[in-house]
Amino acid sequence: MKRLLVTALVGLSVALPAAAQFQKPEDAIKYRKAAFTVMAAHFGRIGAMSAGKVPFDAAAAAANAEIVATMSKLPYSAFGEGTGTGETRAKPEIWTNRAKFDAAAAKMQEEVTKLNVAAKGGNFDAIKTAFGAAGQSCKGCHDDFRKE
Amino acid sequence: MKRLLVTALVGLSVALPAAAQFQKPEDAIKYRKAAFTVMAAHFGRIGAMSAGKVPFDAAAAAANAEIVATMSKLPYSAFGEGTGTGETRAKPEIWTNRAKFDAAAAKMQEEVTKLNVAAKGGNFDAIKTAFGAAGQSCKGCHDDFRKE
Repeated sequence: MKRLLVTALVGLSVALPAAAQFQKPEDAIKYRKAAFTVMAAHFGRIGAMSAGKVPFDAAAAAANAEIVATMSKLPYSAFGEGTGTGETRAKPEIWTNRAKFDAAAAKMQEEVTKLNVAAKGGNFDAIKTAFGAAGQSCKGCHDDFRKE
Repeated sequence: MKRLLVTALVGLSVALPAAAQFQKPEDAIKYRKAAFTVMAAHFGRIGAMSAGKVPFDAAAAAANAEIVATMSKLPYSAFGEGTGTGETRAKPEIWTNRAKFDAAAAKMQEEVTKLNVAAKGGNFDAIKTAFGAAGQSCKGCHDDFRKE
């Protein structure tokens, strides 16, 4: 199941090649920040449920997780060479240690995919566990590749 | 078919109620701008194909249209009362003439849904026609409800 989902992710990456998607570096920066903003908003709504700040709503959790999963696939085509300066907190390590960055991105996408599966299942404890792991994958990448 | 798709859109709106989604007005503004930014990027890629600026690629058109359709559902929960000032070009008419704004939003979502159907079909002429109609629905709302 997990293998299938990862294959599906890779499939979408193929359909949306990184090359020539943005006319200017600032367009790529604006786009990837926007994608992360939308992702974070919906991820945060699941987090509010996980933390008991808002009542658990299985349908809302599933809808939010679906959007998070969709958004998780988008930003990485916008980290092309030459997009490391300007209105961005991206660290140079993204481009000097690309393999590590790509692995961190893939890890996040994998955890978010698991969160989406858990949310569709509707079990609150499973969602909380998956949310925590996904949050750790976000944090790991931010610690290494995003400026304060 | 069209009726089914519109019903599906309405279903998602129910799963993502507008109330209490954003802690601060500026969070709502940032979110809706981000959703429009992502939507516009992918819409523009279909536009580039429609205009003959890049070669027609049916798989890319379909992937982009799917993202546009997903994004089209997101911004409107973020136009709550009290989110009309700050870093936004939203005109006051959004809140003083809400029925017209909501109709414009629904029209855009309907045209984008048609674009998604056309893109999945893979016929270039149908995609161009649907892209043009969707673009008009964007422009109509911008003319009435967005400052220059």
